[in-house]
Amino acid sequence: MGTSANAVSGGRGAPVPKDVDYANYFCTYAFLYHQKEMLSDRVRMDAYFNAIFDNKKHFAGKTVLDVGTGSGILAIWSAQAGARKVYAVEATKMSEHARALVKANNLQNVVEVIEGSMEDVTLPEKVDVIISEWMGYFLLRESMFDSVIHARDHWLKPTGMMYPSHARMWMAPIRTGIVDHKLGEYESTMDDWRSFVDETKDYYGVDMSTLTKPFSDEQRKYYLQTSLWNNLHPHQVIGTAAIIKEIDCLTATVTDIEKVRSNFSLSITMENAKLCGFGGWFDVHFRGRSEDPAEQEIELTTAPSVDYGTHWGQQVFLLHPPMNLSEGDDLKVSFVMSRSKGNHRLMEVELGCEIHQHSGKLLAPFKNKYYIE
Amino acid sequence: MGTSANAVSGGRGAPVPKDVDYANYFCTYAFLYHQKEMLSDRVRMDAYFNAIFDNKKHFAGKTVLDVGTGSGILAIWSAQAGARKVYAVEATKMSEHARALVKANNLQNVVEVIEGSMEDVTLPEKVDVIISEWMGYFLLRESMFDSVIHARDHWLKPTGMMYPSHARMWMAPIRTGIVDHKLGEYESTMDDWRSFVDETKDYYGVDMSTLTKPFSDEQRKYYLQTSLWNNLHPHQVIGTAAIIKEIDCLTATVTDIEKVRSNFSLSITMENAKLCGFGGWFDVHFRGRSEDPAEQEIELTTAPSVDYGTHWGQQVFLLHPPMNLSEGDDLKVSFVMSRSKGNHRLMEVELGCEIHQHSGKLLAPFKNKYYIE
Repeated sequence: MGTSANAVSGGRGAPVPKDVDYANYFCTYAFLYHQKEMLSDRVRMDAYFNAIFDNKKHFAGKTVLDVGTGSGILAIWSAQAGARKVYAVEATKMSEHARALVKANNLQNVVEVIEGSMEDVTLPEKVDVIISEWMGYFLLRESMFDSVIHARDHWLKPTGMMYPSHARMWMAPIRTGIVDHKLGEYESTMDDWRSFVDETKDYYGVDMSTLTKPFSDEQRKYYLQTSLWNNLHPHQVIGTAAIIKEIDCLTATVTDIEKVRSNFSLSITMENAKLCGFGGWFDVHFRGRSEDPAEQEIELTTAPSVDYGTHWGQQVFLLHPPMNLSEGDDLKVSFVMSRSKGNHRLMEVELGCEIHQHSGKLLAPFKNKYYIE
Repeated sequence: MGTSANAVSGGRGAPVPKDVDYANYFCTYAFLYHQKEMLSDRVRMDAYFNAIFDNKKHFAGKTVLDVGTGSGILAIWSAQAGARKVYAVEATKMSEHARALVKANNLQNVVEVIEGSMEDVTLPEKVDVIISEWMGYFLLRESMFDSVIHARDHWLKPTGMMYPSHARMWMAPIRTGIVDHKLGEYESTMDDWRSFVDETKDYYGVDMSTLTKPFSDEQRKYYLQTSLWNNLHPHQVIGTAAIIKEIDCLTATVTDIEKVRSNFSLSITMENAKLCGFGGWFDVHFRGRSEDPAEQEIELTTAPSVDYGTHWGQQVFLLHPPMNLSEGDDLKVSFVMSRSKGNHRLMEVELGCEIHQHSGKLLAPFKNKYYIE
């Protein structure tokens, strides 16, 4: 679920203290308005609905754990698909609404809503299925999968399965008008700053020019180095897309995901392409497990789409200034994503790129730092 | 200084833990962009500049404490006005920029920047003057004055004085197009919710109607019961303004301000006035102390103004639906403002009103709950 995750706090690399985590992250999920936004995402809803109801054999008579149940929707569907028992864990007071919803839909004998964080609660038994909608922007923002891993390692039977079963991160070169817009906003902010420095000197006798460099750094980070939410049109994708990371939800560890390192190649497929940056997105799959595969494999993708956009959009990493490239040009990309030191739910990205032009020319390589906030 | 103060966390009535407080509140002040916004408020800057430089006798050769120095501006001015020593305390990393600014303006021998919260730091001596720009929206939002009180009780000499010396909260009846706008947004959100409930039932087999009441409460609170920032035009003030609270900064205690109770009268001064709500604002004064008064008394007001608006604006408490009143109608208002249980930096208001019309008619009294977030 894509949402805001404020500010920064907490120690180096370690998860932030619970109440800080609440102030920074969890609190948004306590609002019905936010739950409704996610429940109104038809692509998301259809994928999970179909994954469950097209694979009833995985649910009928089984025990299920819904990690981060929110309004309770996945738990309710699991029960409606025939589950014997569903444990629906929710860290915020949204759990009270989930409980009311379960009762209003006559499923209180099957679905037990438990308020608490997944790392703290105790279940009476292990389960056959762990279902969860844990994906943040660009898959891993919010680091909620850590909680799913914890749930799996503690509460999934050895024969149990994960819904979804697999996840992938993707990236492609894109064009977008936003980069010029942001460059303009940055320049405008700096012009305004320079006037401010002059005026503060003239009217108030204080020389603020020593703050110009840190102010510029702060604004650069804000306008140019912070990834943006966007709903990209497929026409904006100017080259091939590559898989950055593949995750098997049954076996992945926190170590596997806390630092994502990948080297991949992208090719420009558009004539006279203006490379304005990179778009990142994800997909997840519901395949069951190899010993007991899904009858109907379902995919939920957040790739650029005209009709099937989702609330996740894509994450855009701007390249400034943009570069004029041609069809057949190759990009060798090195990608490293790690967790923000002050807040493990936010990310930092180092994206390096070497461009081998179709003509044979090798352009000067660059390496940019980005922040997923 | 007016700013955002996120979410809620922490125990009942007690100040929130430090790191939660940082995530909720302090963090915004670590950004130069935010400091610049306050430094660009000419009314604010002129008031403090004049208060200091028109009253140099209070600063020359004296010791000064600047509580919440931010960029360091008040500390720098105090030094430029001749202070012997200035202690500039700042809780965020903005203190590093303040230190750089002090040095760039050649005042490092006078101004000592100390990073830390006022409640934690130790000064080498008591001071003659405590200066601070602590005012939040409607004066007390952010509850920063608590820290100024702490500083005063620990670090002000018995002969010391406060800059500003006095503060007042004001309220007046207003008209505004916003109330119809917000009522419309609320209705629209509820229409959208009702469609959402129908669709979720039809497509996904889940009955969400049990959540309609809590959703409505949440949206009502958001659209109609949360006070708004606005820059009111004087023409929007439809009656007399009253003082809700007066504070002597030299003697006020936290008990005096943590619950603001006031009964006051307002008169409608406009023919055919549409009462759409109440506007709240504040002013502060720099009068020195009675034994050593300011040569030049300075006032900083945030009352509705065409040319002298400030970044604080006013806080607007909407009345829905609006009421048609006449010149001479009297409003008897009971006002109670207390701190939000989960976050002492946010407020809750109970505003009761009895309207005695000029015609002699007494309208049905009402009492509304508001949230200053």
